[in-house]
Amino acid sequence: MKKQSSSPHSSMGFTVWFTGLPGAGKSTLAKLLESRLRVLGLPVETLNGDEVRKRLTKGLGFSREDRLENIRRITYVANLITRVGGISIVADISPYAQSRDEARKEIKNFVEVYVQCPLKTCIERDPKGLYAKAQQGKVLHFTGISDPYEEPLNPTIIVETEKENPEESTKKVLLELQNLNLILSI
Amino acid sequence: MKKQSSSPHSSMGFTVWFTGLPGAGKSTLAKLLESRLRVLGLPVETLNGDEVRKRLTKGLGFSREDRLENIRRITYVANLITRVGGISIVADISPYAQSRDEARKEIKNFVEVYVQCPLKTCIERDPKGLYAKAQQGKVLHFTGISDPYEEPLNPTIIVETEKENPEESTKKVLLELQNLNLILSI
Repeated sequence: MKKQSSSPHSSMGFTVWFTGLPGAGKSTLAKLLESRLRVLGLPVETLNGDEVRKRLTKGLGFSREDRLENIRRITYVANLITRVGGISIVADISPYAQSRDEARKEIKNFVEVYVQCPLKTCIERDPKGLYAKAQQGKVLHFTGISDPYEEPLNPTIIVETEKENPEESTKKVLLELQNLNLILSI
Repeated sequence: MKKQSSSPHSSMGFTVWFTGLPGAGKSTLAKLLESRLRVLGLPVETLNGDEVRKRLTKGLGFSREDRLENIRRITYVANLITRVGGISIVADISPYAQSRDEARKEIKNFVEVYVQCPLKTCIERDPKGLYAKAQQGKVLHFTGISDPYEEPLNPTIIVETEKENPEESTKKVLLELQNLNLILSI
């Protein structure tokens, strides 16, 4: 009987979850981290907030209840990827401690990265022009303006995107993944 | 530099998609196949219709539009599992050729298993008592009774659960997976 070669089962799946204010830099870091992990030959998929809202959670809004449901679906999928030995990267505001706690409970090897950036700076960056609209009252339930963001109290990693460039923040994440023995080299 | 050992990337992800009438035996076969693949040490997760409706598609009903959206979400997730080198097993009526075609297009290594069983037999089995309710008009949009099931014209595998026992049907699937070089041994 031939042995199934390179069974993925022996590898370690994990989830890297970027949380932070709109404009803090989550998507940028997720993209960069994904490309670094691909270079290492690792199987990785990113669940980006915007894509997820198209593919998994069409119809959900931004009320607390809908946001919790949105994150529960992301958690379900991130967990499945992790369970089969893959790496899932989540980039989502995920403003509520409750949903991040639920994700941590469900997903083995859950790495929470708090993408920290002062609100003032996020408002200046405003990459999608949504802060401006929120301040004019044209977008409701906007995190940081008209909706709360509950800061992670005990994240695995904090990156400070006002002080660090994306390369530096990504390096921090990679070093910690290595430190946690989730990846062997960087 | 240490090499990342047993990278799952080198393994072949695939999706086995069981389609068929309610009561045809999809969940039974999915469960049995999952346990066989686990014994082989392979990383496998099952997306069962009922669980999916709790975790991914709460709020969707059984209209054509909602069923298509339901399957699109399953497809999205099955594809992510497949892409990271895992095996996803889907057990869902998936009555429309359109959605199965979309799944086939999106997912690399898509194995469609038509779980064939005469409607009469499914009605006799009626494991969840839903055929009875549908015939009394208490359940609407019920596939086989008040909603169509479009038979697969060209499935990868056909199993006939009226003639075969679950072990025999599962063996058929495993042999075909080996034949397709998706698994090396059974």
